[in-house]
Amino acid sequence: MSALATGNVIAPPPDAGAVGEEIHCLAGMLYPICRSITGQGVRDTLDILATCIPLERHSVATGERLFDWSVPKEWTIRDAFIKDCEGRRVVDFAASNLHVLNYSIPVHRRMPLAELKAHIFTLPDQPDLVPYRTSYYAERWGFCMAESRLRRLPEGVYEVCIDAELKDGRLDYGEYLHPGVTGREFLLSAHICHPSLANDNCSGLALLAMIARNLRGRRTRYGYRFLFAPGTIGALAWLSRNENHVPQIDHGLVVSCVGDGGGPTYKRSRRGNAYIDRVMAHLLAHHGAQAIIKDFSPYGYDERQFCSPGFDMPVGLFQHSAFATFPEYHTSADDMTFIHPQHLARAYRTIMDAIEIVEGDWTPLNLLPRGEPQLGRRGLYAALGGDTAGSSAAMAMLWVLNLADGGHSLLDMAERSGLHFKEISAAADLLRKHDLLAPASGSDIPLDQTSSA
Amino acid sequence: MSALATGNVIAPPPDAGAVGEEIHCLAGMLYPICRSITGQGVRDTLDILATCIPLERHSVATGERLFDWSVPKEWTIRDAFIKDCEGRRVVDFAASNLHVLNYSIPVHRRMPLAELKAHIFTLPDQPDLVPYRTSYYAERWGFCMAESRLRRLPEGVYEVCIDAELKDGRLDYGEYLHPGVTGREFLLSAHICHPSLANDNCSGLALLAMIARNLRGRRTRYGYRFLFAPGTIGALAWLSRNENHVPQIDHGLVVSCVGDGGGPTYKRSRRGNAYIDRVMAHLLAHHGAQAIIKDFSPYGYDERQFCSPGFDMPVGLFQHSAFATFPEYHTSADDMTFIHPQHLARAYRTIMDAIEIVEGDWTPLNLLPRGEPQLGRRGLYAALGGDTAGSSAAMAMLWVLNLADGGHSLLDMAERSGLHFKEISAAADLLRKHDLLAPASGSDIPLDQTSSA
Amino acid sequence: MSALATGNVIAPPPDAGAVGEEIHCLAGMLYPICRSITGQGVRDTLDILATCIPLERHSVATGERLFDWSVPKEWTIRDAFIKDCEGRRVVDFAASNLHVLNYSIPVHRRMPLAELKAHIFTLPDQPDLVPYRTSYYAERWGFCMAESRLRRLPEGVYEVCIDAELKDGRLDYGEYLHPGVTGREFLLSAHICHPSLANDNCSGLALLAMIARNLRGRRTRYGYRFLFAPGTIGALAWLSRNENHVPQIDHGLVVSCVGDGGGPTYKRSRRGNAYIDRVMAHLLAHHGAQAIIKDFSPYGYDERQFCSPGFDMPVGLFQHSAFATFPEYHTSADDMTFIHPQHLARAYRTIMDAIEIVEGDWTPLNLLPRGEPQLGRRGLYAALGGDTAGSSAAMAMLWVLNLADGGHSLLDMAERSGLHFKEISAAADLLRKHDLLAPASGSDIPLDQTSSA
Repeated sequence: MSALATGNVIAPPPDAGAVGEEIHCLAGMLYPICRSITGQGVRDTLDILATCIPLERHSVATGERLFDWSVPKEWTIRDAFIKDCEGRRVVDFAASNLHVLNYSIPVHRRMPLAELKAHIFTLPDQPDLVPYRTSYYAERWGFCMAESRLRRLPEGVYEVCIDAELKDGRLDYGEYLHPGVTGREFLLSAHICHPSLANDNCSGLALLAMIARNLRGRRTRYGYRFLFAPGTIGALAWLSRNENHVPQIDHGLVVSCVGDGGGPTYKRSRRGNAYIDRVMAHLLAHHGAQAIIKDFSPYGYDERQFCSPGFDMPVGLFQHSAFATFPEYHTSADDMTFIHPQHLARAYRTIMDAIEIVEGDWTPLNLLPRGEPQLGRRGLYAALGGDTAGSSAAMAMLWVLNLADGGHSLLDMAERSGLHFKEISAAADLLRKHDLLAPASGSDIPLDQTSSA
Repeated sequence: MSALATGNVIAPPPDAGAVGEEIHCLAGMLYPICRSITGQGVRDTLDILATCIPLERHSVATGERLFDWSVPKEWTIRDAFIKDCEGRRVVDFAASNLHVLNYSIPVHRRMPLAELKAHIFTLPDQPDLVPYRTSYYAERWGFCMAESRLRRLPEGVYEVCIDAELKDGRLDYGEYLHPGVTGREFLLSAHICHPSLANDNCSGLALLAMIARNLRGRRTRYGYRFLFAPGTIGALAWLSRNENHVPQIDHGLVVSCVGDGGGPTYKRSRRGNAYIDRVMAHLLAHHGAQAIIKDFSPYGYDERQFCSPGFDMPVGLFQHSAFATFPEYHTSADDMTFIHPQHLARAYRTIMDAIEIVEGDWTPLNLLPRGEPQLGRRGLYAALGGDTAGSSAAMAMLWVLNLADGGHSLLDMAERSGLHFKEISAAADLLRKHDLLAPASGSDIPLDQTSSA
Repeated sequence: MSALATGNVIAPPPDAGAVGEEIHCLAGMLYPICRSITGQGVRDTLDILATCIPLERHSVATGERLFDWSVPKEWTIRDAFIKDCEGRRVVDFAASNLHVLNYSIPVHRRMPLAELKAHIFTLPDQPDLVPYRTSYYAERWGFCMAESRLRRLPEGVYEVCIDAELKDGRLDYGEYLHPGVTGREFLLSAHICHPSLANDNCSGLALLAMIARNLRGRRTRYGYRFLFAPGTIGALAWLSRNENHVPQIDHGLVVSCVGDGGGPTYKRSRRGNAYIDRVMAHLLAHHGAQAIIKDFSPYGYDERQFCSPGFDMPVGLFQHSAFATFPEYHTSADDMTFIHPQHLARAYRTIMDAIEIVEGDWTPLNLLPRGEPQLGRRGLYAALGGDTAGSSAAMAMLWVLNLADGGHSLLDMAERSGLHFKEISAAADLLRKHDLLAPASGSDIPLDQTSSA
């Protein structure tokens, strides 16, 4: 029983399937690179992202002070292996960059297996997977391998070699700003420091790059600032160089693990009731029973830094499966077969929906607030009475009219009515076209509507 | 273990059974009339209601502007039928006024069944019931009938006749004010526009008329304003003529569907936390598991108009089964067998209980607030200690004494204690008689108690 | 994966088992005494408590006005019995002081069983138990006995004797203040008027005495005021003599029924959100599924008086099983076999934990609030990254750092993080030692830490 005169069907954009494939393809290009918090892997990754968007690149020299931290040495890794007594590589960096303890110092020695084992990390509960381990802030060397492979190694003397270097150099990160008309900003951040892990975080890097690319040419209220930086130290580098810029950021999302079939999961900002927290809670409430909203906790990705008490930014964490909750997490099973185009497209839509709310929210004023206006006369309402329930589109109009007292934004209305923001927004648009609504004092009509008017 | 010296047994009033029969009987008198939003049916209904209470009658001329609406033409219906080729009435307005699309324009033609079907409304899922349909604000004609009957109609040419008239006339509504001493008011409203539907809304009309009649002669704090008006347009007519009066209304209930065995159901006002919302939530909480409290939504009866943002009145909707949730809703099965005296009496008691709270609430001050007063010495409390729990009456006294700090009304106390307002009120009365309580500054003792003092 | 350089294992104090035995032993000394609201039993009880702590003793003369009450006569009981026709004691006060209606007036008569029965109290549903009954404020005499015994009594004439006396005397209570440095106080109160009932309330008396004893020599922020007073009238006596002192009391607990295996149960103060309410809710949330938090109600023990509206003190009720919820309550089955050292020790720990929070809470300020400080460099954090979750100790540090904005106390942090106060407190201590935290303006470091610095 739709009474709407104009079509306001809310369909996925026509390229929804295509965008998933594109993101998956880009993630696949990033996957093989051996990234760490510093070094050539980060630069190679930024090179690939720069093929999508005009990335601004920054670097900070080793030893530079970043709040309580200082930029570590730059890591170069060329090769790493464990050879048995017959010279066969039983563990080989060339086969998977997870095999080397990330940020290892160099080593080249022969030693018996018993001694070597102190430097080997496995997952006894997942004996066929190689774990991902790092040692950024304590100098050591080590290998990661499958427990099952380790068990098959005979006693004996092995040659271990990590042909790596730790020397003064730089920390790199990339940034891209899609400018907005208001000067206010939305930060979207993904960590760039994990090596061959597809979901964590090639998926996040590729997703944000595609969003950035697809926003190009669009006139937006907000500037969208995309940050691709090594975890912790990269975020601190950006914060350290942009302290004065932080107050301009009204909304933010850290994005990781968005290619798997779980969730979606949203972890609120430290504030707990920031606008972005409401936006994500609204979207996830309409996403089905699998969606999970978590309260802030100070463990996770770079929201830890953005939400530290000295910044307290309105930044939440968006994921599909939450980190550390899926068995593939931080193992060799987080490979390109673990992430799928349709899930990447789903994450893309969720973030784009968040952007649509941020761009499209406004506070309408009912111009005929005494009683309901006669929608039927305007062709906005079913003329035939006696049916048992209003359609969703008609309900959206009634909600908007009822709450349009100047004290409720469209998001407020969506929250109270239980209807999706898109339905509320479409109803408000239609009512405004029929001169039943106007923006409340101090509220702006979304840009798209202004330009189409 | 009742320790109360005076009996304060809370029993239904002795006429509880009788009042249900009276309401049922009055509803039965209203049931056969073919009402619409305008026309003789409304006037006939007001005539019957005027036998109970000195109804004030108002009319508004066709074409008069009511906010965004204008008063429609007056509808007169004399007869309507579909005759088969042998001249037999296969659908007959005389058998049930539901058969005609309410507010139909006149028609008198012969046409083949296939053409006629475009004008016939049935309920395929309830094939033996006749639906109730209206077309108030788009001029058309039509019939309503049982799907099973329609299926049995042979092909052929039928004579269709709706002997109706739509012409300039007037919109009628009735109003009755039981005056109160404070000038503040409680609005009770029922829609008068539905034809032969017993629960929706002969039950509401008859219930309110009996409440109005039974309040006569009683001195009350509040004025009780009863409104019997056609849905939407009648409420708008009243609002349009009483805009300056709206701020005097402190509480309001729209009443419909109060004769069936479901619910009770209360839909909150738009404000959500109005005093009447608290009153009804309290009463329904003591009503058992079947009671349902719903948040406001802008779809329903005339609370839509009263709660429009330009008025935002504290008006909720009281029903037994909520509209559109029972299979008889808006069908020929909503007849006099669907409503029962005991359910009407139950609804009567609920609304009278609400009135008792509105009339009987006050804010006491404990005159011996340091420690508990010695109730036993006054004969208010069981002298024999060691029992495992206080009686409900003793608990009510303890709650009243404990919360009587001038910041809690009796309703506040009932809400916090979980006890019924009647128990709290009886305890407060008793304690006041023993000089343990006095009204807090700015709070009035209920009128009944003043006059009995 | 504990990364803490210093051990902060949180274990029960080494004497946890011993303290349970001590409390049980002390309760056992109190158990046989025939207490009432006045009389020698109270004095004998205070004598025993005075062996643990330097008890200050107070008495109020019969007839003295205490708000709305006056001090009753002093009760002396020497003997009581019912003798059958052969002179055998079929009910004997010497066997159990529960047999006499507590506070009975004297009687010595012969009467037939039928007449005697009006003075006999039994528990028909628990036929083998003797009930506990009192008649403080109405003068009467009576006996309590097992229903099964009563049924076996043959008809006939019995000699009844209660060799008691009610005469002008005094009401006694005991008080002990462990002084604190701030002048603010924590009230701990137990009723002293019940005769041979072990859980209710020999357990509470003995527990508080042991806490008082074990606090001696400890420098504390708060003064700890211990009150051992007859129920209702004793609390009113204390309140009456200490009205000006009431505002100094920031926290309070009434303690009873702490020796059984149920609960723990906490009933909130009238305020509902007092600091002590938050402390107890926090502790009980970490106690497991059996813990029960109840909202305030004005029925119970002396929290009724402390929370009367004229005082409205922040005093809750701490119990294991809530009064009147266990079958042994107010019967002869509430004997020394019903309470156990391990449960008394558990209650001891709970109250000591509450004291630790009250003593140990402070509001820290993160001295490096922009981003996280580098914990790893300080040896506070696991150096090896990639593990799936932080340890509880590491999480506590992250929470403290994140919330240390000067607006969150350690208890606030414990509540928000879901971690135990002890973990939060240990983390804050460690971070302060590493100069990462300082007390926020207006917040004091706990005394223990000050003295150890």
